[in-house]
Amino acid sequence: MTGPAPSAGPEPAPVFLLSDFGEGDAFVGVMKAVIAGLAPRAPLIDLVHAIPPQDVLAAQLQLEAVLPYLPDGSVLLAVVDPGVGSARRGVAVEVDLPAEATPGGSVWAIAPDNGLLTPLLADGTPRSAVRLQRGAVRPPGPGTTFDGRDLFAPAAGALASGTAPRRLGEPVDPASLQRLPLPEPRREGGGWLGEVVHVDRFGNLVTNLRARHLPDGATSIVRVAGHELRGVRDAFASVDVGAPLAYLGSLGRLELALRDGDAATSWGASRGTPVTTDSAT
Amino acid sequence: MTGPAPSAGPEPAPVFLLSDFGEGDAFVGVMKAVIAGLAPRAPLIDLVHAIPPQDVLAAQLQLEAVLPYLPDGSVLLAVVDPGVGSARRGVAVEVDLPAEATPGGSVWAIAPDNGLLTPLLADGTPRSAVRLQRGAVRPPGPGTTFDGRDLFAPAAGALASGTAPRRLGEPVDPASLQRLPLPEPRREGGGWLGEVVHVDRFGNLVTNLRARHLPDGATSIVRVAGHELRGVRDAFASVDVGAPLAYLGSLGRLELALRDGDAATSWGASRGTPVTTDSAT
Amino acid sequence: MTGPAPSAGPEPAPVFLLSDFGEGDAFVGVMKAVIAGLAPRAPLIDLVHAIPPQDVLAAQLQLEAVLPYLPDGSVLLAVVDPGVGSARRGVAVEVDLPAEATPGGSVWAIAPDNGLLTPLLADGTPRSAVRLQRGAVRPPGPGTTFDGRDLFAPAAGALASGTAPRRLGEPVDPASLQRLPLPEPRREGGGWLGEVVHVDRFGNLVTNLRARHLPDGATSIVRVAGHELRGVRDAFASVDVGAPLAYLGSLGRLELALRDGDAATSWGASRGTPVTTDSAT
Repeated sequence: MTGPAPSAGPEPAPVFLLSDFGEGDAFVGVMKAVIAGLAPRAPLIDLVHAIPPQDVLAAQLQLEAVLPYLPDGSVLLAVVDPGVGSARRGVAVEVDLPAEATPGGSVWAIAPDNGLLTPLLADGTPRSAVRLQRGAVRPPGPGTTFDGRDLFAPAAGALASGTAPRRLGEPVDPASLQRLPLPEPRREGGGWLGEVVHVDRFGNLVTNLRARHLPDGATSIVRVAGHELRGVRDAFASVDVGAPLAYLGSLGRLELALRDGDAATSWGASRGTPVTTDSAT
Repeated sequence: MTGPAPSAGPEPAPVFLLSDFGEGDAFVGVMKAVIAGLAPRAPLIDLVHAIPPQDVLAAQLQLEAVLPYLPDGSVLLAVVDPGVGSARRGVAVEVDLPAEATPGGSVWAIAPDNGLLTPLLADGTPRSAVRLQRGAVRPPGPGTTFDGRDLFAPAAGALASGTAPRRLGEPVDPASLQRLPLPEPRREGGGWLGEVVHVDRFGNLVTNLRARHLPDGATSIVRVAGHELRGVRDAFASVDVGAPLAYLGSLGRLELALRDGDAATSWGASRGTPVTTDSAT
Repeated sequence: MTGPAPSAGPEPAPVFLLSDFGEGDAFVGVMKAVIAGLAPRAPLIDLVHAIPPQDVLAAQLQLEAVLPYLPDGSVLLAVVDPGVGSARRGVAVEVDLPAEATPGGSVWAIAPDNGLLTPLLADGTPRSAVRLQRGAVRPPGPGTTFDGRDLFAPAAGALASGTAPRRLGEPVDPASLQRLPLPEPRREGGGWLGEVVHVDRFGNLVTNLRARHLPDGATSIVRVAGHELRGVRDAFASVDVGAPLAYLGSLGRLELALRDGDAATSWGASRGTPVTTDSAT
């Protein structure tokens, strides 16, 4: 018969999902079915599943984008897992959100311990962690290649429904969790040498440069792929249609774009393309 | 800790989301996190996010498709926003659904005021509107390029949780909202000259022609890309596999297809391709 | 006004959705709007919508993957429907989940009766079925080409909100439902001749071979596209990066992959590519 039991008790926590499973298979759907079986009323909210396969660095940038906006008490399930089946650990980590988060609070993040959670460990404050144990919540399914279904989703469903974290596995020291930082800009002349770390759907180039890497602030010069951009703008509308612009984007990172155009294609730029800043004089 | 406070009060309204943000980045996920922080139990329901970048007309056709089926009291969040950062307004508009809607009622639609909401303004009846004010609900994040996160999602979360619309900004006259209608067919000979306005995933061609543009009804002739289709069919199954057919589609618009084939590719047709109707004699 | 009536009564059942409607149009969004209008608080959970257009066999494999994980009482809405508008039936089928399902129970599956539900009928136990009647729940919209909106989604919303199945149409004998099994392997020499039935996002090849088709168990030989794989592995990590491996995947099916690579592209393999097993001696 349809219809689980009437509701009772506190509201379950929302579960946010990120993976490199793509849209072509029901991998994400299977994880959601597992979570829904454990936490029937937990909202299941997709962040992104089109991370390039096994690209842990690309996934970090997406986590960085959402981190300040996660509601207090959320569960974050992130699976980009080139080491599935190896000895790498699966973990659940309780993290206090960064100070700029609104409204702030803490979340539980569940992921392979392969550096994927670096933005949470660096921008937030990890408070506790457990190493996930297969079968702690429910029996695993066939095969050894789908820990999203067998290890991570059960942990997410359990935490979302209020299960005590110690039921999921042994405590581990949060200081032992693997970090895999994005490349850092380095000084060059009067400015900085950075690089493109992401190209978005609009062809805009996201860099690893921030406001502190602009030697003359909004009048700095930015160079990329043979193009020189003079000044950092407040808005797309401040340049003509088709013109290039540099601006501080929604991640607080320097971004480069063509207004109403595709900078990546037009300039032949992609991840790793060098970007330099310089003083205006 | 996991688990927000116990539920109380009325059910939050569902929020339907449409954008051109695509699936490759967490843009939509960030908007959902913002909404979930304001309206924790509001169902978040995706309409479509693969609108071609900044294509306001393409988005309108998707809004037209869903409009009659929105539940009374829904919130509709639509972000296709080539003018982000310019002086264009962000608005929330209360709209009575069209008469053919089932069950009917009214919705709040939130969008940039750039013509995107034209189908709601034309097919529905706007009752009131406010101009959204940045920071009215929560402080904006870094940058000026992500009003989906900083302006529109906060408004959607606020309305879904029952916040009074006047808290979001100043009232504006609904008659002042921008309209950007799709091209209209015009008379040609004994019939009409229209065009393809959309190609769907199956390669079917959606036109701007309707039943009233068929001079002989179901026996009219339709011409597209050098092909002549005689008669308008009730169903794909009424022609042989591989054969072309014209039919009134799920939007009430004339559509052209190849049964179990891809008409757009086979005929080299795309948006803007002319389509004519004629009498059968 | 926003905000439906306060909640009352039992929790609605979650609705899982699978289709070939893709991400480019609001087809899925329209179905969700219809369901939300009938069952406002039913969780709507996507399985996959990128099934190749009208590919009923491909969809079955995705249903097989999720079947053991569906929560008791779920509603499953599956629309891959090359025969829309023809005389093919739309059905709702009550199915006891297979014995290996955790936690098990039963679900209602809604689909065209074209073989799509074969995995549920074969692995589960159908208990009852009804033939869906257009207009039984709500009036259909324009056109005859979108039964997802007009026939299947209304049935899903009705069942999720607790409507009695007999309100949706006449009972039919579950034994009359169409089955369309995947190709079965056949004996060849000391082993089996099977084939690739699916390529996933990572380029891994999923076959129609299972553990029982490995004549020497984990020491069997597997041949595909001119490559010979010796032995069946437990995990990707048991071979070097770039090396090929055979393993029993998350569906209990034999899969073939390149560690951290794309086997389909590297080997020129795709659906239908023959795969043979042999004894090791």
